[in-house]
Amino acid sequence: MAIKIIVAGPRGRMGKEAVHMIYDTADFELTACLDHKNDGKKLSDLEGFSGDFNAPIYTDIEKCFSEQQADVFVDLTIPEVGYKHTKAALNHGIRPVVGTTGYTNEQLEELKQLTKEKQTGCIIAPNFAIGAVLMMKFAKMAAAYFPDVEIIEKHHEQKLDAPSGTAKKTAELIQESRKSKKQGHADEEETIKGVRGGDFDGMRIHSMRLPGLVAHQEVVFGGAGQTLTIQHDSMNRASFMDGIKECVHQVMDLDELIYGLENIL
Amino acid sequence: MAIKIIVAGPRGRMGKEAVHMIYDTADFELTACLDHKNDGKKLSDLEGFSGDFNAPIYTDIEKCFSEQQADVFVDLTIPEVGYKHTKAALNHGIRPVVGTTGYTNEQLEELKQLTKEKQTGCIIAPNFAIGAVLMMKFAKMAAAYFPDVEIIEKHHEQKLDAPSGTAKKTAELIQESRKSKKQGHADEEETIKGVRGGDFDGMRIHSMRLPGLVAHQEVVFGGAGQTLTIQHDSMNRASFMDGIKECVHQVMDLDELIYGLENIL
Amino acid sequence: MAIKIIVAGPRGRMGKEAVHMIYDTADFELTACLDHKNDGKKLSDLEGFSGDFNAPIYTDIEKCFSEQQADVFVDLTIPEVGYKHTKAALNHGIRPVVGTTGYTNEQLEELKQLTKEKQTGCIIAPNFAIGAVLMMKFAKMAAAYFPDVEIIEKHHEQKLDAPSGTAKKTAELIQESRKSKKQGHADEEETIKGVRGGDFDGMRIHSMRLPGLVAHQEVVFGGAGQTLTIQHDSMNRASFMDGIKECVHQVMDLDELIYGLENIL
Amino acid sequence: MAIKIIVAGPRGRMGKEAVHMIYDTADFELTACLDHKNDGKKLSDLEGFSGDFNAPIYTDIEKCFSEQQADVFVDLTIPEVGYKHTKAALNHGIRPVVGTTGYTNEQLEELKQLTKEKQTGCIIAPNFAIGAVLMMKFAKMAAAYFPDVEIIEKHHEQKLDAPSGTAKKTAELIQESRKSKKQGHADEEETIKGVRGGDFDGMRIHSMRLPGLVAHQEVVFGGAGQTLTIQHDSMNRASFMDGIKECVHQVMDLDELIYGLENIL
Repeated sequence: MAIKIIVAGPRGRMGKEAVHMIYDTADFELTACLDHKNDGKKLSDLEGFSGDFNAPIYTDIEKCFSEQQADVFVDLTIPEVGYKHTKAALNHGIRPVVGTTGYTNEQLEELKQLTKEKQTGCIIAPNFAIGAVLMMKFAKMAAAYFPDVEIIEKHHEQKLDAPSGTAKKTAELIQESRKSKKQGHADEEETIKGVRGGDFDGMRIHSMRLPGLVAHQEVVFGGAGQTLTIQHDSMNRASFMDGIKECVHQVMDLDELIYGLENIL
Repeated sequence: MAIKIIVAGPRGRMGKEAVHMIYDTADFELTACLDHKNDGKKLSDLEGFSGDFNAPIYTDIEKCFSEQQADVFVDLTIPEVGYKHTKAALNHGIRPVVGTTGYTNEQLEELKQLTKEKQTGCIIAPNFAIGAVLMMKFAKMAAAYFPDVEIIEKHHEQKLDAPSGTAKKTAELIQESRKSKKQGHADEEETIKGVRGGDFDGMRIHSMRLPGLVAHQEVVFGGAGQTLTIQHDSMNRASFMDGIKECVHQVMDLDELIYGLENIL
Repeated sequence: MAIKIIVAGPRGRMGKEAVHMIYDTADFELTACLDHKNDGKKLSDLEGFSGDFNAPIYTDIEKCFSEQQADVFVDLTIPEVGYKHTKAALNHGIRPVVGTTGYTNEQLEELKQLTKEKQTGCIIAPNFAIGAVLMMKFAKMAAAYFPDVEIIEKHHEQKLDAPSGTAKKTAELIQESRKSKKQGHADEEETIKGVRGGDFDGMRIHSMRLPGLVAHQEVVFGGAGQTLTIQHDSMNRASFMDGIKECVHQVMDLDELIYGLENIL
Repeated sequence: MAIKIIVAGPRGRMGKEAVHMIYDTADFELTACLDHKNDGKKLSDLEGFSGDFNAPIYTDIEKCFSEQQADVFVDLTIPEVGYKHTKAALNHGIRPVVGTTGYTNEQLEELKQLTKEKQTGCIIAPNFAIGAVLMMKFAKMAAAYFPDVEIIEKHHEQKLDAPSGTAKKTAELIQESRKSKKQGHADEEETIKGVRGGDFDGMRIHSMRLPGLVAHQEVVFGGAGQTLTIQHDSMNRASFMDGIKECVHQVMDLDELIYGLENIL
């Protein structure tokens, strides 16, 4: 039997792709959408959705969750709104799958309690790209054997922050299993300042910015006579859809809150 | 306290490096060596070992294991000889660490029984390069989420067999977790025969052979909008020493036989 | 002073991007467009072009080239149409820049004569991606010193033909400067058929097909103790625009026909 | 007919490999060696050379060049000594091939004059690795079309200086053809200092240092929708031998001084 899904945020870039993914997946069924406007319309009334997309749109959370029998609730809105949605879904026994980095520790703790109370699965994921999450997971595992590691992340030249959030997160995960050490030769010298990259607990991070790049990262581990490289290349948001799909399947069998895709892969 | 080690095959290429590694490792101590000649000499009497290498050499297994109190026995000889050595070591309560691909299933089964009986740890590893073993382990894990995968292995032009043993082993491990499928477009056509590589359960393997290459492998997984690559580059045998070191440490806490480094990493 | 440009095929995918590129380039000016319909309209009347795009549309070649004083004519249509366009442009003294692989040798020869006669520059390019063309040019140069070379091209799994046209073209260019030889060990053996790739004059070509890939190629040269790799990664059609831009600039100073971007880079 | 060669510095690491390379090359003949000791001996009297190596050893330059009719003189000693050798060789009409970065501009100028006067070819090369030299040459060529470029060089963790000499030289060559610009977003921010690498005329250089690495460099060019990467991997000194061989062949046809392998490739 198909898994019945409600999506919040169907007009956003991620939401739109998620709605299409659900329609394209044999064992998924889109029951309804939550949107802060367009109450009473159907998806097919909105721009970018063809006539097949007949799911009803609600602006009222309670009404939506009461009228529509759903198994899973996928939230692709912003953190403040998503938080309210998630609580309401849990209260209605609908399993939330939420893509966000924005919840506070207090909010996460409260949702954890509520999940336990309601015995309803819930997945909150800062990153739905399975490849990126596996890269981080493998990097953490490898760091236990190879304490010498450098990260090089490569993005388009419009990116403002360096290093990327993924690079930082990778370094933090590596730190959990790596024996802390200052890498490189004790007497090494930079004749051009900065070439050895950024220092994070003794390991090095490099950020490349060039037009033509999208979002890429290499984690390179070195040991005597060998190197091990784990690399993720992301071309577009389509990479997130496989992660959402995986979460929808797995949340059906959960009765607790899982934070981070790495904990279900 | 130092871990006391006996090495069999100290004059071979791997054995020689292992002996040096043991001397260079603070908590390791070389107690003796097994060699099919040079009985009664010391390592320092042989070519390639300096005066510090004062471990005695035995040709008689029983005598060696009786006279020398050792914790671990490292065998770097050939399968037929190594098999006898391993049994003898277990009978003396000395934990074997053996690098070989050559044991039959019957031999492995017999050693497994003996290990259980003697409650003495034993590690048998076809490949001591931790990086290569992690690559295979990660590849198997990733294949559960990305059924589309191709392997490209790259070796020097003197290599006779294609694909490499590691590529084949990787493909077999991937097969265990991957949903079997024929990859590529159903109607794809080769205008030059062989360009799509070798077929292994629907996935593709490519072998590159060029002077200047040593031993390299990339496993590339593809999903919508993303690729995940796991790559191992091996420069020389030094890469095996970290694996032997890891095994010596871990075998101390085992009371069963482990086959393959991937099962202790 | 701005270079005045007429574009044929403004509604196609390449044409649309070219029109936008011209509007975004300070020293370029779009004078008019050739289209097989929409005569008398303006670009801004068509879908996908905002109000600023006020270039007039013609369906009649002669009328267009007579009424509009242009320096360069960019043809992004299909070969049969483009061929007629190109001849007309040359007859009007307007320099053609044509993206096509479809002209016959006879057509090219005729255009060459006409170019010489009219002393009007003309560039015909099968590939406008400067990076891809440089990759091929460098590969040809390197092959003079490294006769051992393998090509690995990587494309999305919807691609039907293998190897790619670029890989084949690269191999042909390499052949012009490489000392012909059969690569690999004389006694090498495939235990899985096809792993050593396709044979092209003794060198090897490999084609990888995976979802998540776009269009990539590596050319790997091997010599004693070293390898040299030239790699091109193409994400989208934007890569062609820099090539068109370069051609528009260079055709202004030409008085002959140039076939292939590699001959002006 | 074989090219007759005198080698200076046969006991050094490079010299020893060069001597073996000459013996292994069909159209090369080792006439004699220059060494600051061992006068009157044969190569085969020294450690590391078998009985076939019967070239006589001289300590006196003039005597060596007078008694031995040679076509080419290969100097693999240190700059001060090599400079004297090179002048003497030119005076005797023997073509020098010298591997050094150590000559001053005055010395180079003087040798240039002498070369012209004697109409005797001479090649002085800071780097004999053909792959590395081609990488730099290609990088310079590509920079004319892609002003956005980053260099990442990767070496073993024992290397003291960062960036490598090759990276610096590459950046200088790129600078000659690249339109100077500050790369990256104008408002980009480093949240970990140094991640964006070292700044060289607005482009970025990154230095990775890990055990297991040997000597590698990638030069990555980015343009709209595409990247072009030129990569050199050096495993050992064998990579220099092909360069010496090429120089010996080419110097036979020269009548001037060439500085840098890039000018003959």
